[in-house]
Amino acid sequence: MTTELVREELHASVSDPASASMNFLNEVSSRFPDAISLAAGRPYEGFHSTDDLHRYLRTYLDHLERLGLDADQRQRQLLQYGRTNGYLGPLIARMLAQDEGIEVPEQAVMVTTGAQEAMVVALRGLCAGPGDVVLAVEPCYVGFTGAARLLGIEVVPVPETADGLDPETVLAVARAVRADGRRPRALYLVPSFANPSGASMPVPARRRLLEVAAEADLLLLEDDPYGLFGLDEAPRPALKALDTGQRVIYLGSFAKSCFPGARIGFLVADQAVIDRQGRRTLLAEELSTVKSLLTVNTSPVAQALVGGFLVESGCSLRTAAKEKIQFYRENLRTLLATLERSFADQPRVRWNAPDGGFFAVVDVPLTADESLLEISGRDYGVLWTPMSFFHGGDGGRRALRLSCSALEPAQIEEGVRRLARLVRDRAEPR
Amino acid sequence: MTTELVREELHASVSDPASASMNFLNEVSSRFPDAISLAAGRPYEGFHSTDDLHRYLRTYLDHLERLGLDADQRQRQLLQYGRTNGYLGPLIARMLAQDEGIEVPEQAVMVTTGAQEAMVVALRGLCAGPGDVVLAVEPCYVGFTGAARLLGIEVVPVPETADGLDPETVLAVARAVRADGRRPRALYLVPSFANPSGASMPVPARRRLLEVAAEADLLLLEDDPYGLFGLDEAPRPALKALDTGQRVIYLGSFAKSCFPGARIGFLVADQAVIDRQGRRTLLAEELSTVKSLLTVNTSPVAQALVGGFLVESGCSLRTAAKEKIQFYRENLRTLLATLERSFADQPRVRWNAPDGGFFAVVDVPLTADESLLEISGRDYGVLWTPMSFFHGGDGGRRALRLSCSALEPAQIEEGVRRLARLVRDRAEPR
Repeated sequence: MTTELVREELHASVSDPASASMNFLNEVSSRFPDAISLAAGRPYEGFHSTDDLHRYLRTYLDHLERLGLDADQRQRQLLQYGRTNGYLGPLIARMLAQDEGIEVPEQAVMVTTGAQEAMVVALRGLCAGPGDVVLAVEPCYVGFTGAARLLGIEVVPVPETADGLDPETVLAVARAVRADGRRPRALYLVPSFANPSGASMPVPARRRLLEVAAEADLLLLEDDPYGLFGLDEAPRPALKALDTGQRVIYLGSFAKSCFPGARIGFLVADQAVIDRQGRRTLLAEELSTVKSLLTVNTSPVAQALVGGFLVESGCSLRTAAKEKIQFYRENLRTLLATLERSFADQPRVRWNAPDGGFFAVVDVPLTADESLLEISGRDYGVLWTPMSFFHGGDGGRRALRLSCSALEPAQIEEGVRRLARLVRDRAEPR
Repeated sequence: MTTELVREELHASVSDPASASMNFLNEVSSRFPDAISLAAGRPYEGFHSTDDLHRYLRTYLDHLERLGLDADQRQRQLLQYGRTNGYLGPLIARMLAQDEGIEVPEQAVMVTTGAQEAMVVALRGLCAGPGDVVLAVEPCYVGFTGAARLLGIEVVPVPETADGLDPETVLAVARAVRADGRRPRALYLVPSFANPSGASMPVPARRRLLEVAAEADLLLLEDDPYGLFGLDEAPRPALKALDTGQRVIYLGSFAKSCFPGARIGFLVADQAVIDRQGRRTLLAEELSTVKSLLTVNTSPVAQALVGGFLVESGCSLRTAAKEKIQFYRENLRTLLATLERSFADQPRVRWNAPDGGFFAVVDVPLTADESLLEISGRDYGVLWTPMSFFHGGDGGRRALRLSCSALEPAQIEEGVRRLARLVRDRAEPR
């Protein structure tokens, strides 16, 4: 007798709506392989080759030798089980100080299997019972809301403005949650060049958000995968760089600055944790138990790849990723310029003009749903992401996200032209 | 104002008792670095060098070239984001067929960040609500009970016998759980050379357990990290090899057969899942959403290392791990022989004689707790693991686990002699 399981009896995260949407997107992409994908938010593939892997490994092993580790110790560090929180703490702390002005002890750094695991670790550690909820910007990266659902943690949305999150709205939502008898533990946001919206918070709003976090006794989960990729050199300090009161847990990723295949991310949690006996530790150290129950430790070989990459650049991503920064700047400028040109005759179409990152959002005079996406791929040869995928309720129905990270400039231009034809042909009458 | 968090207000998994015990063990080990550790269950370090990493990568890339992938495609597979369930499915399916007689489609294989993540994925996917519980062998690997705690899933213990789990006891416990209004979704066990007990199930009991699983509508989570390392060539089929009704989710690890630093494990879930529309998929495919919310995908570079290792051996771990199998056999024989010799004059001390694996359990006429371990490390120069660490209640208080995997035979002999002195000196009077 064969075993048959009922899908609806599996955990809700199996049928996660955002994941279902992403699966649909992947499926459409595979059916129309020749369509230009303004949907894919992955990094461009021209920056690294597999030869780099060997060089990064050698560089990191040489680094360990200079630190005084003998051959057995070097081998143990790469091949054996390792420290739960990983061994890149010193290099990452140096990088954060140099690139971001973030000063944290290396013990506050946990290396994770990508930023996704960092989100799961932080969520699990902070939310102890059913009354503990998290706030999150809406529209939101689906990996965050999905991770919360996986752990059974309620997410309370805070609507985003054109300038990212409004601190006063955050305060109002946090107070409402507390008045309702629940405890808002943290707020998730991407302050610089958000995914999906591309929005960024002005510096005064960042400072005010830190005050609000202290007033509302909230931690801030600052996700910063795109912070390097500003269109200009204007200062956009990470919240963590302004965080004199340890209100921020910083989530980092090497997927865009190095390459995704290492699956190396990290979190920085320098909050003091005090137990009943008065013993003090750092939150990152306490969270190591959670990390150990998810993946034991992050692959030390994968850590060595990123370690070699960091050592090569003297621990500066701004140096190491110079070429990438220029490339993504040109892509985003191309995207915005082509939107201007291609939609000049369609005044009902509007879009934002992010000052960095991989994404922009276009408001269109029609419903941008899965069936339109299907038509777009089949008849117009262009793919994009419905903004509704990033909303919990029914927001984003007449908007779409364009990504410009994985393409060459000429493909971006052609993709946007195709999109303009689609919108012109299918716009609803006024 | 600095942020201070209260440890007791963090999630219970932060203070996981088993993890606290393991931390204590690590801490004692670091305070007595010269003590012989019969506590460490990690693999011996003499089998691999960092040069192997380069060779495995090259071997796997050559394999992809033979499969017809061009340079861009090979680079994309290793460096870009990848398929959630990984790309080692074909090689692992071939390995399972050759080594274990397990015949499953490659789509039933999910590559995970070690077997730990495989446990989290399976637990999360199967247990949908508060009434869904899992059964687990007791004494139990702490990574499993900890993973369940992390997800808020109740674990109902099933006591182990000298011959591993008794199927009739499993049936009785499952029925009692159901009579109590809860749904037993799965049973976790290590049928061959269990951690911590070393016990193995006879073949007839394995067959009966599969019948019981069907009768009680239970899935079996078969964890098999040590199956390769039998003392002899007697057939000990995996439950999955006998599983004609898809009752078994098989959890595999390359940490012992290859090396831990790749952090590559996998699960095999070939159960049919049917949704309300009658659409059929495999459980491994449905669980990919859960996996994506934990770690997106397993590092493809790390997968390539194990891929190269598998390709080198023609996808046979029994071939690839020949030297390791001999080494661990000699170590376990040395452990058992030295126990005979060293405790010949202490008839109140008893131990089991596992027919494979890394562990044995010694019953001693005294309380084998953390304070005894401290004395053992400081005054006798030997470390071991209290069996109480592996019990949820107050079991295992007068027993200890010995590991023989990480040492040379001469160290095992000396370690056991030291242990015999400790027990002789501190045995409670009759």
